[in-house]
Amino acid sequence: MRQFSHEISVATRGKGFYEITGEAGSWLSGLGISEGLLTVFIRHTSASLTIQENADPDVVCDLEKFFSRLAPENDPLYTHTTEGPDDMPAHVRAALTQTQLSIPVARGRMALGTWQGIYVFEHRRHPHRRQVALHLMGE
Amino acid sequence: MRQFSHEISVATRGKGFYEITGEAGSWLSGLGISEGLLTVFIRHTSASLTIQENADPDVVCDLEKFFSRLAPENDPLYTHTTEGPDDMPAHVRAALTQTQLSIPVARGRMALGTWQGIYVFEHRRHPHRRQVALHLMGE
Amino acid sequence: MRQFSHEISVATRGKGFYEITGEAGSWLSGLGISEGLLTVFIRHTSASLTIQENADPDVVCDLEKFFSRLAPENDPLYTHTTEGPDDMPAHVRAALTQTQLSIPVARGRMALGTWQGIYVFEHRRHPHRRQVALHLMGE
Repeated sequence: MRQFSHEISVATRGKGFYEITGEAGSWLSGLGISEGLLTVFIRHTSASLTIQENADPDVVCDLEKFFSRLAPENDPLYTHTTEGPDDMPAHVRAALTQTQLSIPVARGRMALGTWQGIYVFEHRRHPHRRQVALHLMGE
Repeated sequence: MRQFSHEISVATRGKGFYEITGEAGSWLSGLGISEGLLTVFIRHTSASLTIQENADPDVVCDLEKFFSRLAPENDPLYTHTTEGPDDMPAHVRAALTQTQLSIPVARGRMALGTWQGIYVFEHRRHPHRRQVALHLMGE
Repeated sequence: MRQFSHEISVATRGKGFYEITGEAGSWLSGLGISEGLLTVFIRHTSASLTIQENADPDVVCDLEKFFSRLAPENDPLYTHTTEGPDDMPAHVRAALTQTQLSIPVARGRMALGTWQGIYVFEHRRHPHRRQVALHLMGE
């Protein structure tokens, strides 16, 4: 059994979904591993990860609208407001989605379903550079 | 360290919870692995996974009611409606729960708590066949 | 490749967040593993796990307030009420967050971002003792 680590950096331009399936797959395919487990981990608490449909782009647009409504800015509930009106909603959205995803690898590829894509889900208004750690164990 | 892969297929009959603890456990127990990590991965974006109480069946009924209210059908928020009124709520429900779960294995069994069961959480109205990938690493 | 298991017990004193980053890190640092994958698994369905900001304590206070409002006690939606008004909301909150987290290990430490802490998220009113399984695979 061998293991490999890598980090990818994702430049986000405001709230929404940024697909990283291709970049993770490219790294994986260069390692010569047939079976294993790929872990994707985002090193932030105001951006997160999700696996969602990557066929119709309206799906992730609608998801963004749903989360914006569920955790609105300027909610009088919040005490933590010094980092801006989008910061506390960002933490809520991150808590409701994933910081980490692990995906089985079979025949050298991630065992994703036909329509599954891996996304960084950005929760802040302004551009950010997001660090995503990849870890693969397999042989 | 060794690894094993398997896929189970779950026939769902509408929205709700379908327990797979027994099927995953049966596969595990035949492998002769004492310690390791079992990963469960659902290959869909309109069904998901969750670990929940499997003692009182009212718990998962109430969970279904909660998610149906939180992400109702026919919400005017959505643009993606061509796949039916239950499709976009399905993606929301999947985003709010899990696509993947990893469970430590100790003494040949999943280290689940007393009342924990692994469920496929179906988000669509009509029957579906859901593919769930299992991956075990251990020895 | 080697693997290690451990269990930590967290005494909670009502709803809220209990950080376990230090305790998990201490166990890890004693194992002499440089690269690997650490899995944290909570063996309950009315408490869960999350990775959140550990800089400003207002963040987790606001998260607690958000989840209390999203899944209020005494909601007439629920059938499962025999375990108390906080029990069914606890299952909802657990379903919306994580039962398991896996974190890559690099250079002997968890590859957490600067502000990331690992928390047990308690969803019940009364004190509980929560069992958290740790599993490490690496070398």
